[in-house]
Amino acid sequence: MTNAQITLVQIDNYGPWTVTPEPRREVDLQTLQSRLYADLSQLIGNRQGYVFFTRFDNMVAVTNGLSMDDHALVQESVANRYPVTVSLGVATGTSPVQALADATEQLQDAGSAQDKSRREILRGRTIDEEFRTDDDIQIAHFDVNDMTGNFTDEVNAFDSFIHIEQGYAELMKYMREAHDSLSFFVGGDNVIAVCPELDEAEYEDAIRHVRETVEVELKVGVGNGRVPQDAGMAAKHALETCRADGSNVEFQ
Amino acid sequence: MTNAQITLVQIDNYGPWTVTPEPRREVDLQTLQSRLYADLSQLIGNRQGYVFFTRFDNMVAVTNGLSMDDHALVQESVANRYPVTVSLGVATGTSPVQALADATEQLQDAGSAQDKSRREILRGRTIDEEFRTDDDIQIAHFDVNDMTGNFTDEVNAFDSFIHIEQGYAELMKYMREAHDSLSFFVGGDNVIAVCPELDEAEYEDAIRHVRETVEVELKVGVGNGRVPQDAGMAAKHALETCRADGSNVEFQ
Amino acid sequence: MTNAQITLVQIDNYGPWTVTPEPRREVDLQTLQSRLYADLSQLIGNRQGYVFFTRFDNMVAVTNGLSMDDHALVQESVANRYPVTVSLGVATGTSPVQALADATEQLQDAGSAQDKSRREILRGRTIDEEFRTDDDIQIAHFDVNDMTGNFTDEVNAFDSFIHIEQGYAELMKYMREAHDSLSFFVGGDNVIAVCPELDEAEYEDAIRHVRETVEVELKVGVGNGRVPQDAGMAAKHALETCRADGSNVEFQ
Amino acid sequence: MTNAQITLVQIDNYGPWTVTPEPRREVDLQTLQSRLYADLSQLIGNRQGYVFFTRFDNMVAVTNGLSMDDHALVQESVANRYPVTVSLGVATGTSPVQALADATEQLQDAGSAQDKSRREILRGRTIDEEFRTDDDIQIAHFDVNDMTGNFTDEVNAFDSFIHIEQGYAELMKYMREAHDSLSFFVGGDNVIAVCPELDEAEYEDAIRHVRETVEVELKVGVGNGRVPQDAGMAAKHALETCRADGSNVEFQ
Repeated sequence: MTNAQITLVQIDNYGPWTVTPEPRREVDLQTLQSRLYADLSQLIGNRQGYVFFTRFDNMVAVTNGLSMDDHALVQESVANRYPVTVSLGVATGTSPVQALADATEQLQDAGSAQDKSRREILRGRTIDEEFRTDDDIQIAHFDVNDMTGNFTDEVNAFDSFIHIEQGYAELMKYMREAHDSLSFFVGGDNVIAVCPELDEAEYEDAIRHVRETVEVELKVGVGNGRVPQDAGMAAKHALETCRADGSNVEFQ
Repeated sequence: MTNAQITLVQIDNYGPWTVTPEPRREVDLQTLQSRLYADLSQLIGNRQGYVFFTRFDNMVAVTNGLSMDDHALVQESVANRYPVTVSLGVATGTSPVQALADATEQLQDAGSAQDKSRREILRGRTIDEEFRTDDDIQIAHFDVNDMTGNFTDEVNAFDSFIHIEQGYAELMKYMREAHDSLSFFVGGDNVIAVCPELDEAEYEDAIRHVRETVEVELKVGVGNGRVPQDAGMAAKHALETCRADGSNVEFQ
Repeated sequence: MTNAQITLVQIDNYGPWTVTPEPRREVDLQTLQSRLYADLSQLIGNRQGYVFFTRFDNMVAVTNGLSMDDHALVQESVANRYPVTVSLGVATGTSPVQALADATEQLQDAGSAQDKSRREILRGRTIDEEFRTDDDIQIAHFDVNDMTGNFTDEVNAFDSFIHIEQGYAELMKYMREAHDSLSFFVGGDNVIAVCPELDEAEYEDAIRHVRETVEVELKVGVGNGRVPQDAGMAAKHALETCRADGSNVEFQ
Repeated sequence: MTNAQITLVQIDNYGPWTVTPEPRREVDLQTLQSRLYADLSQLIGNRQGYVFFTRFDNMVAVTNGLSMDDHALVQESVANRYPVTVSLGVATGTSPVQALADATEQLQDAGSAQDKSRREILRGRTIDEEFRTDDDIQIAHFDVNDMTGNFTDEVNAFDSFIHIEQGYAELMKYMREAHDSLSFFVGGDNVIAVCPELDEAEYEDAIRHVRETVEVELKVGVGNGRVPQDAGMAAKHALETCRADGSNVEFQ
């Protein structure tokens, strides 16, 4: 049984900041957001976690292995280097969606995301060391079948992107509703999902649903681990097996 | 009449690189991609252009005001600082979609995105200075009505994100098919579209379509300019007018 | 005759900020400083200027070609992305040292570097377009003769560094006192100096002084230009000629 | 007794790379170097170590607490994100200078810093966990007395910098020769030294030497720790005590 530790990272009062005293230049906002995400990738990734950019002003991390002290340090490091601060809500559970819901509530209970006085909240709880197992995380790494041959090299770059985006929008919704999973677009034609303990039939089901609904052909590699990086790397290797064997679903 | 100059930025042979000799750590890929995007934002933004992260391995820029020499310098600067190189295709036209299609062809004609020997292509043409006008660019800045009050502060962070993502997936497809526009999610609940000369009724139409199809309520500010930054900043100010007046569509 | 435009970049109230409310972690300060410098390199370098890290909290830039509006944009971009702000003083003159002295006074007159209320000062003047010439800047690029063969590959890394550092400390002082020049260590065994119009004998004199005083053997390539990047690139090519020919001083 | 673990970080074949096929633009080299340093600060700092920029192409790190596996990951992360690679030599000892000498030899034995085929060397050894103690590291944090009041706010920015630089050049040389310590300028008027177990009289001696030789007045806070960050933070607090009490040397 999985036991995901999920952290919601929310930039404090970000929307109002972007337009105060008047709208800030988009180039600076884009630079700020993407660098903050890169830094969180390093801060959390160097501790074996994963973070996804999601909306950029709200990012979702899988943080099994990070303590509340680690979270505090990440928060402090952001405050020391950026003009904005972040709040962090942490929760755990067998269902990644439920864990994120609990993490979200930690922050909502502390005030609105656009409340000027709600800053640098750090709430929630991590998994006690004694309860951690080697199967706490299940990560699924999807990509689109022959994306380069059928799309990137054939149609215009926006139509390629529409194809990926329609596939992602459908997959992320279905995986959440049918399988309690959190799916994130990570660039290229790749989607990484944080899942409860799903079996091959459930992944086949998701792939079939996306194919039938929006005509996007996916395959997926699945890995488990004690920390997100181990699960994620196992999933990548499983996806390589799909590529080599022409299969749709592979478990590492 | 608009005359967009669109640049397709494609990382050379990126997919194979990410898995050679074996899959690279996701944290490093995420850091690389988001920093490359941040750097392109600065390199292009400091020359008054806009760039959108799109798929990260394929990014789309609006580059009115940048010469081919400017493009060459951007390309050289990336090669000097990253383990990967980029190819650039440039094209112009009254329809942003058509311009991007032409820019894409420039690269496709030079070889596959996954061809090892196709590196640092720089092809296409920019708008002659004498033909540039103050209305060459039309940019539309959309956001979701009362996203924070209705979603961010109320439902879990993934369901908020699903709401934004469904809205974006529908908008980007409809704006492309019905209005020859390129729409990009830029974080938060914001979408920036590069449009041909559209009028108020056409924006109302797009907003209505998204509301009726996926129940996401949008508003939009629209601006024109000789360079992307002027058009984009005008659009932001127009969106502030929407916020202040409760209107759905505003032109600056 | 040269006409350097020099900008002093000073982080506002930085010292107190680094220890308030208590000392901040050194890793974050180092990251902040070096990234701010990298960003200024890009912001100023993309406009053909040069910036040197100097003390990091006080940086010196050569900004021929940048207007006061360009300076304002650099200042705004820093404020949009960092937890600190910068003040900028700009001055021009045939002597780089005098220009920097005037630029410094612009800021000193506005208040102390550690005055909490002195923020984002932008003062001074740039060179009128009509007075700019192709010889406004003279840049000299020094390096240490056979540094790798004699030191890096032979003695311990700190003793190599001491050798470079003693050479730099002597050169920067002598070039300032004898030749009104500003010399900056830029990494490796390289020093870049912004000079008034010096001739070969004066460079020979500086090299001789350093050799006789601290036994460090230097060579130098010198270039002129309308903007710092042209002068700097010419100096690099001249230094390559030194390497090829075994000469000590070369003008491009 | 201290037991420093010192790592020499050397960019492979960097000098030749910067001028091949012709000299690369200085702005890109400066950006590359300072970002690589910032990234190493984070990679090593997130594991409680310290890294100093030194020459940028040769950086020195204090890495007590980092295993050889941690070093390998740092090396891999650089290769995944930069156009250059790094070699790492690791050694330990009661004398930081001797440890760095041993670490340097690890790389020198593997080939020249400018040997094209010598890439990504990783050699040396770390301290066995059982032998680590809470006094393994002694860090001294120096700054210049009343630098802002006497210099930054009074004389031109280059003369202020000369004052700091002369102090640093003298201190780094004397501390190395008389006290087996490695001293690094870290920005502002700050120097951080990695020292063997020195006592108050030895720090008084160094301060006196610098005052008498180059008329620069220093003070110093000293801290010990099991890992560099603890020692460094203790030193910062001790320096704050100097500031509060007007003393010259304080141990935490």
